[in-house]
Amino acid sequence: MLALRLLTPVLVLAVSVFASGTPRIDKNKAALLIVDHQVGLFHLVKDINPSEYVNNIVGHAALGPLFNLPTVLTTSAETGPNGPLPKEIVELHPNSTIVRRGGEVNAWDSEEFRAAVRATGRTQMIVAGITTDVCTTFLALSLVEEGFEVFANADASGTFNKFTADNANDRMRGAGVQVLSFFAVVGELMRDWRNTPGAAEILPFLDSFLPSAGYLTRAHAAAVLNGTILPGELA
Amino acid sequence: MLALRLLTPVLVLAVSVFASGTPRIDKNKAALLIVDHQVGLFHLVKDINPSEYVNNIVGHAALGPLFNLPTVLTTSAETGPNGPLPKEIVELHPNSTIVRRGGEVNAWDSEEFRAAVRATGRTQMIVAGITTDVCTTFLALSLVEEGFEVFANADASGTFNKFTADNANDRMRGAGVQVLSFFAVVGELMRDWRNTPGAAEILPFLDSFLPSAGYLTRAHAAAVLNGTILPGELA
Amino acid sequence: MLALRLLTPVLVLAVSVFASGTPRIDKNKAALLIVDHQVGLFHLVKDINPSEYVNNIVGHAALGPLFNLPTVLTTSAETGPNGPLPKEIVELHPNSTIVRRGGEVNAWDSEEFRAAVRATGRTQMIVAGITTDVCTTFLALSLVEEGFEVFANADASGTFNKFTADNANDRMRGAGVQVLSFFAVVGELMRDWRNTPGAAEILPFLDSFLPSAGYLTRAHAAAVLNGTILPGELA
Amino acid sequence: MLALRLLTPVLVLAVSVFASGTPRIDKNKAALLIVDHQVGLFHLVKDINPSEYVNNIVGHAALGPLFNLPTVLTTSAETGPNGPLPKEIVELHPNSTIVRRGGEVNAWDSEEFRAAVRATGRTQMIVAGITTDVCTTFLALSLVEEGFEVFANADASGTFNKFTADNANDRMRGAGVQVLSFFAVVGELMRDWRNTPGAAEILPFLDSFLPSAGYLTRAHAAAVLNGTILPGELA
Amino acid sequence: MLALRLLTPVLVLAVSVFASGTPRIDKNKAALLIVDHQVGLFHLVKDINPSEYVNNIVGHAALGPLFNLPTVLTTSAETGPNGPLPKEIVELHPNSTIVRRGGEVNAWDSEEFRAAVRATGRTQMIVAGITTDVCTTFLALSLVEEGFEVFANADASGTFNKFTADNANDRMRGAGVQVLSFFAVVGELMRDWRNTPGAAEILPFLDSFLPSAGYLTRAHAAAVLNGTILPGELA
Amino acid sequence: MLALRLLTPVLVLAVSVFASGTPRIDKNKAALLIVDHQVGLFHLVKDINPSEYVNNIVGHAALGPLFNLPTVLTTSAETGPNGPLPKEIVELHPNSTIVRRGGEVNAWDSEEFRAAVRATGRTQMIVAGITTDVCTTFLALSLVEEGFEVFANADASGTFNKFTADNANDRMRGAGVQVLSFFAVVGELMRDWRNTPGAAEILPFLDSFLPSAGYLTRAHAAAVLNGTILPGELA
Amino acid sequence: MLALRLLTPVLVLAVSVFASGTPRIDKNKAALLIVDHQVGLFHLVKDINPSEYVNNIVGHAALGPLFNLPTVLTTSAETGPNGPLPKEIVELHPNSTIVRRGGEVNAWDSEEFRAAVRATGRTQMIVAGITTDVCTTFLALSLVEEGFEVFANADASGTFNKFTADNANDRMRGAGVQVLSFFAVVGELMRDWRNTPGAAEILPFLDSFLPSAGYLTRAHAAAVLNGTILPGELA
Amino acid sequence: MLALRLLTPVLVLAVSVFASGTPRIDKNKAALLIVDHQVGLFHLVKDINPSEYVNNIVGHAALGPLFNLPTVLTTSAETGPNGPLPKEIVELHPNSTIVRRGGEVNAWDSEEFRAAVRATGRTQMIVAGITTDVCTTFLALSLVEEGFEVFANADASGTFNKFTADNANDRMRGAGVQVLSFFAVVGELMRDWRNTPGAAEILPFLDSFLPSAGYLTRAHAAAVLNGTILPGELA
Repeated sequence: MLALRLLTPVLVLAVSVFASGTPRIDKNKAALLIVDHQVGLFHLVKDINPSEYVNNIVGHAALGPLFNLPTVLTTSAETGPNGPLPKEIVELHPNSTIVRRGGEVNAWDSEEFRAAVRATGRTQMIVAGITTDVCTTFLALSLVEEGFEVFANADASGTFNKFTADNANDRMRGAGVQVLSFFAVVGELMRDWRNTPGAAEILPFLDSFLPSAGYLTRAHAAAVLNGTILPGELA
Repeated sequence: MLALRLLTPVLVLAVSVFASGTPRIDKNKAALLIVDHQVGLFHLVKDINPSEYVNNIVGHAALGPLFNLPTVLTTSAETGPNGPLPKEIVELHPNSTIVRRGGEVNAWDSEEFRAAVRATGRTQMIVAGITTDVCTTFLALSLVEEGFEVFANADASGTFNKFTADNANDRMRGAGVQVLSFFAVVGELMRDWRNTPGAAEILPFLDSFLPSAGYLTRAHAAAVLNGTILPGELA
Repeated sequence: MLALRLLTPVLVLAVSVFASGTPRIDKNKAALLIVDHQVGLFHLVKDINPSEYVNNIVGHAALGPLFNLPTVLTTSAETGPNGPLPKEIVELHPNSTIVRRGGEVNAWDSEEFRAAVRATGRTQMIVAGITTDVCTTFLALSLVEEGFEVFANADASGTFNKFTADNANDRMRGAGVQVLSFFAVVGELMRDWRNTPGAAEILPFLDSFLPSAGYLTRAHAAAVLNGTILPGELA
Repeated sequence: MLALRLLTPVLVLAVSVFASGTPRIDKNKAALLIVDHQVGLFHLVKDINPSEYVNNIVGHAALGPLFNLPTVLTTSAETGPNGPLPKEIVELHPNSTIVRRGGEVNAWDSEEFRAAVRATGRTQMIVAGITTDVCTTFLALSLVEEGFEVFANADASGTFNKFTADNANDRMRGAGVQVLSFFAVVGELMRDWRNTPGAAEILPFLDSFLPSAGYLTRAHAAAVLNGTILPGELA
Repeated sequence: MLALRLLTPVLVLAVSVFASGTPRIDKNKAALLIVDHQVGLFHLVKDINPSEYVNNIVGHAALGPLFNLPTVLTTSAETGPNGPLPKEIVELHPNSTIVRRGGEVNAWDSEEFRAAVRATGRTQMIVAGITTDVCTTFLALSLVEEGFEVFANADASGTFNKFTADNANDRMRGAGVQVLSFFAVVGELMRDWRNTPGAAEILPFLDSFLPSAGYLTRAHAAAVLNGTILPGELA
Repeated sequence: MLALRLLTPVLVLAVSVFASGTPRIDKNKAALLIVDHQVGLFHLVKDINPSEYVNNIVGHAALGPLFNLPTVLTTSAETGPNGPLPKEIVELHPNSTIVRRGGEVNAWDSEEFRAAVRATGRTQMIVAGITTDVCTTFLALSLVEEGFEVFANADASGTFNKFTADNANDRMRGAGVQVLSFFAVVGELMRDWRNTPGAAEILPFLDSFLPSAGYLTRAHAAAVLNGTILPGELA
Repeated sequence: MLALRLLTPVLVLAVSVFASGTPRIDKNKAALLIVDHQVGLFHLVKDINPSEYVNNIVGHAALGPLFNLPTVLTTSAETGPNGPLPKEIVELHPNSTIVRRGGEVNAWDSEEFRAAVRATGRTQMIVAGITTDVCTTFLALSLVEEGFEVFANADASGTFNKFTADNANDRMRGAGVQVLSFFAVVGELMRDWRNTPGAAEILPFLDSFLPSAGYLTRAHAAAVLNGTILPGELA
Repeated sequence: MLALRLLTPVLVLAVSVFASGTPRIDKNKAALLIVDHQVGLFHLVKDINPSEYVNNIVGHAALGPLFNLPTVLTTSAETGPNGPLPKEIVELHPNSTIVRRGGEVNAWDSEEFRAAVRATGRTQMIVAGITTDVCTTFLALSLVEEGFEVFANADASGTFNKFTADNANDRMRGAGVQVLSFFAVVGELMRDWRNTPGAAEILPFLDSFLPSAGYLTRAHAAAVLNGTILPGELA
C-alpha cells in the first residue's frame, strides 16, 4: 500500500467505493473454478462439519452442469499427500479442463491454468478451494488484480479453523472479492424461480446439497398431497 | 455419604438402581411448583436467551391450568431486590397459593410452603426456579428426601452460566431427580395427542411457548389449506 | 470492480469514505420493508434462538405502526414451501401493501415491489428478511445502488448459521449498508424518550419484544412502588 | 425412586452396578428401531448440522439391511405437521413393519408397536428418534423397564438444542441405557473387519454416511495405487 | 472396583444410592480448605475468566471469616514456579494454619495437613484448588475415603480447559463429592436471610464477589430511595 | 451515501484511506467519556462476564485520574430503570462534570453534554458505554462527524450479545472509529514504562483491573524476592 | 442389565458405590496401553487441536519410559487407511510389545493382545486411543469386566467431535472407568515432587508436553536467576 | 481522520482501494520481526491453545533461517514480569539483532529497533507478537505509516481473548495491514513446491510446526511405501 506524503491536497467529494454497484453474479458472464478440493487436503478442513463440507464441495462442482458454466478444475501435486479430486466431482465434469499443477501454490502462477481460465471467455469467477487462506485467497487476489469480478463460495472453501477462515475471508473482502454463501451463489445464478434453470431444476439440486431446504420442500409436498388438519392446528 | 468399613461381606446380585423403573410424570399424581421466578432474579439468568427464558417460565406456569395441576407458587423477599413474580404468571394462577417467604433460601424450610405442598395431596413434584443451583436444587433435594418423585423442568430454571447449570443439574440427577426439557414435561403429562388435553389444547399451547413447534404447525396448516406443488418439488 | 491501470497518478488527499457522515435513521425519511418472513422459511433460520427470532420479526413489523412508517411487505411463492407470513405480522399491517412475488429471488427485480417502495416517497429503507444472505442482502445491495440509504435490522434477519450471517452482513457493510441491532433501530427512530412516540409507547413495546429491557423496567417499577430496603443493602 | 426409611441396616459389600458387564451390541440379539424420523419433525432439530443429521438418520436406517437386523419403523401422526418418513429410509425397509401411531407420544404405549418389537424376538434394541428428549427417551425408558438392553444411537437422535440433548442422554444413562455414537454402533455390530459384513461392506457404508472416514480411505487408496514420494516427505 | 462372580444371588430391593439424603452444608459442621490457590498456578487456569476467577478464589477464602469456619490453607512448593498465595487470601486468615507442603501432590499425603484438617473437628469439608483435576480432585477423593462429607466449590477451582474441568468434576461426583457453585455454597451456609450472618452480612459480601447479584441490589436500592416512574412503565 | 452517476472519469492513484496514519491516543489531546454505565443498564450486558465487566468499567473511569484526562460523565434518566452510576465511578471523579440527560438517546443531542465535551478542549475522545450498539455507537458516530478522533474502549462497552457487539463495533469501524481493547488504550496513553505515569503507577492499576497481568507481576516479584530453583527447572 | 421383578424385598443400607475408595494409579501396579494412535486415524480427531493432540499422544507414550511402566502398543490394520504409529511413539518403546491386530475392533478380542496385557502382571491399566468411542471405550469396558482397574487418559484419546467424546467418556464412567486428564495421570503416578521420578524428571517432561506448565517454570527460573523488581511491582 | 467540509466537489471515478494489488510477500523483499514473544507474556495469551501457540511462535521464528530472511527480535523489560524469549527462538537466530527495549511499548518508538529494521534493507515486514492488540498492532500501524508493506502472522500473535484478537486484527486491516495465517505466510514465501526452499525443506518444517499437515504427509508416505488395499476400499 502506498504511503503518500501529500504535497498538494486536492479536495474530492467522498465517494462510495461501491458507488458503481456491488458485483453480482450473472450466469452468462461467470465461470466456475474448482481449486484443490482433493481427498487428502480434505483432512485439513476443521472449520466446518465433514458431512456439510462434502455437500458443499460437490454442490459447488454441480453448479457447472446445472447452470452451464464453463468450469476449470485444478489440483496441486495430486500423487502426493494432497491426493486426487473426489470421483463425484470429476464425474460431473467430463468435458472440463483439469489443470494438474506441478508445484505452484497460487493456481494463477500456472500458465496452463491462466490459459484455461481465459479460454472460458468469462469476466466473473466463482471460486472455492482448500485451504481458504492459501488456495482460495491467493487465486482470488490474483484474479482481482487481473480485472475479474471474483465471487468466493465461502461454504465450499475450508481450512484449519474458524479464525483462519475469518481472516482469509476478510483479506479477500479487503481486496474487493464478494464472499457469499453457497445458497447466495445459487440465488444470484438463478435470479427467478420461473427461469430455466429454475424451480424444476433447483429444488432437486437443493434437496441433494442443502438438506434443510430440501426437507422444507418435502414436508410441504407431503402436506399438500396427503395432509390433514389436526384438532387445535388452526387455533 | 457413608464410608462403610465392611466387616462381613454379603454377596448380592448387582441390580440396576433404576430396575424398578425411571419415574415418569402422571398428571393425576403431579403438582406444579413455581419457585422464585421473580422479575429481579430474572437478571441473574445468563445461561439461556431472555426471550426463550420468558417463554419457558410463563409456559411452566401455564402447565397448571392446562393440565389442571395443583400449583404452589413461592417467592423470596419480593419487596427486596428479587422483585415480584411477573404479572403473567400470577394471572395464570388466581386460585393457587403463593407462599411469600421471609428469608428461607430453601423453600422447603418454610413451614407454610411445606403445608401448601402437602395440601396438594400429590406425590410427584414438577419444579423450576431461579437460580437453578440454589432455588431449584435445594428444594428438589429436600423433596427427594421427603419421598416425593421430583421432576426438574430444566428449561424453566436459570442461573449465572452454563457451567453452574450443568453442575446443579448433575447434583440433582445424583440425588435421583429427573431432569427434563420443557417439551418432555409436556409430553409426559399429555401422553397421547388424542387425550384431553390433547392436540386441540396442546398445539395452541406450543404455538405460544415453543415457537419452532408452533411454526411447524403453521407451515403445515397453510400447505394443507392453501398449498400448491411447485415444479421440481416432487422430483 | 474496476481494475485501473493508472496512467497519470494524481495525488489526492486521503478522505474518509464516511466523511460526510454515517447515515442514521430519520423516522420522517424512513420506510419499513418486511421481506419473506414466511412461516416455512422460518425453519431455515439456525443462527438465532427461535423464541428470540419470533420476537425480532414481529417486533420489526411492529415498528411500522409504532413510528407510523410506510411499510411494504413481500413474500416469495407463498403457497409453496416458503409458506405465508405469520398472522401477527399481517395483522399489524392492515393497510400496507403486500407484494406476493411469483419467482423473483431479489425483491427489487419485481416491478410491483419497486413501485410499492417508490410509492412510500421515502429515501431510507429499514430492511430485514429470511434468509439474511439472499433475501435481505440481494435487496439491500439493489437499494444502495438505487441511491437509498439502507439500514439492515440484523436481529430480524436469519439464516442457516452464524458463518453465513456474518459473511452476508459483511457483504452489505462493504456496500455501505448500515447493519444495526433491533435496539439500535428503535433508538435511532425514537431519538429522545420525551418524544412521541417516546417512553410512554416504547417501554411497553420493549416489554413485548425485548424482554431483558422489559424486565428491567418491571423490577424498577416494583421497587419504586413497593420496595423496601433489606439489611445490608446500603452497605 | 424409593425413599426408604431403613429400620435394620444390613451391611453389604459395595458392588459395581456394572459388575456383570456393560451391555454391548450383539448383531444376533439386536433389533433396530426407527422412531419418528419424519420430514416435518426434522425441522425441530437444531443440536446438529442438517447435512450430518441426514447422514446419521439414513445411516441408522441402513444398519438394518447391512447387518440383517429385524427393524421396526414408527411414525407419529404422519399426515399432520410431523410429516412422513424420508423416502430413502422407507426404501431401505421394503419388508419391515411401519407402525403409524395415532396419538401415543411414547411408542411403547402403542400395542401395535409393542407387538412388532416383540415379534423381532430380539433382546437388544438400537434406537434413535426425533426428538431425543421425547421420542427416543420415553421409548428407551420403557424398553429398559421391560427388560431389554437398550442402545441409543446418539448421533441419530436430534432435538431443540445441545442442552436438551445432554439432559435427555443423561436421563437415559441414569436408567441404564447405553448411549453410543453412530460409529460405535457400527463397531459393536461388526466386531472384526474380517467378518461378514466386514471391510468389504462397511468401508463403502462409511464412505456414504461418515465422510471423514470415507475420505481417509479414498486418500489411502489413491496413495497405494498411484502415489509418489515428494522430496522431503520422508525427512 | 470389584468384579464379582456371583455364586448365590440374593434378591434385594433397589434402593437409591442417595436415599439417606444428599449431603448439605451445615455451617456448624463445616471447615474450609484452600488448596494451592497460588499466584503462579493461577496462570494455568484457562476454563474461567481471570477477573471472575480472582473473585471466586478470594470469595472462597472470605467464607472463613464470614461464617466463622475453621480454615486450613495449603500450598505446594511456594518458592518454586507455583508461587505464594495472593496476599488478599493470606490477610483474610491471620489465625488459620497454612501448611506449606514440600512435595506431596495430594495434600492429604501430608501428615501436617491431615493433622490440621482433623484439628478442625469438623466432618464436612468445603474445598477448592488449582488445578481442579489434580489439587482439588486428589484431596477430595481422599477426604471421601476418610469419611468426610466433601463439597467442592466448583467456581473456585480452575484448570487447563473446560474438558478437563468437566472430567474432574465428574470424577468427584462419581465418588460422592457434592460439586456446587460458589452461590450455592453461600446459600447452604446461610440458609435464611434473617440469620446471622444473613442479609446484613451477605449482601455486601455478594457485592464484592458476585457482581451480578451486587448490581441487582444496587439498582433496587436506588429505585427504592430515589426512583420515579416513567411514562409507559406501568403499561 | 452518495450514488454517483459519473460523467467524467478522472483517473486517480489508489490511496490508502489511512495513508495519513491511523489515529493513536495522545494523553495530551484526549478526554475520557463515560456514557450510561448505570447499575440498571448493567443487567442488559450479556456479551461479557459480569466480574470482568465491572473491572472494565471502573478501570475505564480510573483512566481519568491516572492520566489526568479531562472527563465527562453522562447518564440517561437515572431515576428510572437505568439507575445511577456505580458509586466507585462517581468517587473517582469528584471534579468532573456529570451530565444527567433527560431523554436524549444519543448524548451528543444534549446541548449540555456537547458543551461539556467542547469545554475539555481536547480533540480525541475515549468512549465507552452501555449499550455498545446504542449509547456508545450513536455518540461515537456523532463525534466523528464533528471532527473528533474517536477511540472506543471495546471492553468497557457492553450489550445484549456478542452478535450485537460485533455489528456495533463494525459500524463504528466503518465510520473511522478506532475500536481498541482496554489494555491497548492504557498502552497508547502510557507509551513508555519509564514515563510518568509509567510502571510505578500502571502496574498497580493493572493489578486492580486486569488480573492476569497483575498476577504475572505478583508471580515475578515473588520469584525475584523469594524464589528457589527446583531440580529439573533448568533442564 | 437385569430387570428384576422382586419377590422378597430386603432392606439394605444405602452404600456408596465407591465406599471402598475411588481407584487411583499406583506406578507399581500400572501398565500403559497405547491403542491405535495411528497417523491415518489421527485425521478423524476433531475434538481437540492437532498440536495439543500430538503432545498428548506422544506424552502418553512417554509415560512408559518415564515411570518404567510395562507398555503394550497395538494397531489396527496398519497398512490400510489407519496407517502406522508415529515414529516418535515407536522410538519411545524399543522393547515394548506391538500387537498388530488383523481385524479386531476391540483390542481385547485379540488373543495376542490379551496375552501381552496379562504378561505385564499389572492390575491397573492406563489407556488411550483413537477413536475415544470405539478403540478406547471398547477396550476399557472389557478391561473392567476382566477385573482390571482402568484409567482413561482423556486428553490422549480423540474422536469426531466433542459430543461423541463426552458420550464415550460418560459410558466409560458408567462402567467404573476413571476418566482423568493427562496432568492428573502424571500427578497420580508421581505422587510427590521429591520422589524419583520427581521434579528433576517431571519438569522437563511437562516442558515438552504441557507447555503452559513448562512456560510457568521458564518464567520462574528466569526471574530467580536474572530478575529485577520494576517500580510499582510491589505496590 | 479528516472531516472535510467540501467546498468544491470533484467527481472521481470510484476506484478500488486495492486496484493496484493486494500486497503479497516476496521472500526477497521481506524481513521477519519477532516482538515480545517472552515466556512471561506467554501467560497472557488465552485466545489460542498453548500447544498450538508454542508451535506458532517457534515456527514464526524458524521462518528466518528457512527462507533466509533478515530478522529483528525485540523484547520489553525482559528482567521484569515479561521474562526472556524462549530459548528455542533465540537459538534459531544466533546472528540476528535482539533489541532489548527499556520501556517503549511500541517497538517503533525505540531508535535502536528502527535502526535494526531499516538495516535489513527490506520493504516488507512479517510481524507477530504478544499481545496482538498492543505489541503487534502498535508496531504494525507505525510500520504502515513509515511506508512498509506489513504482514501480520495472525497465528503467532496472541492476546487475552478472541474478542480482543478480532478487534486488533480489524484495526490493523483498517490500516492496510495484511492479516494472514501462518500457513499463508509460508505459502507466499515459498510460492512453488519446486523452488528452493520447496517441498524438500517445507514438508519437514510443516511436520514440526503444523501437525495436521505433517500427519497428512506421514499417512501418505506410509501408504505409498507400505500400503495395501483392503476389501471394499475401492468400492
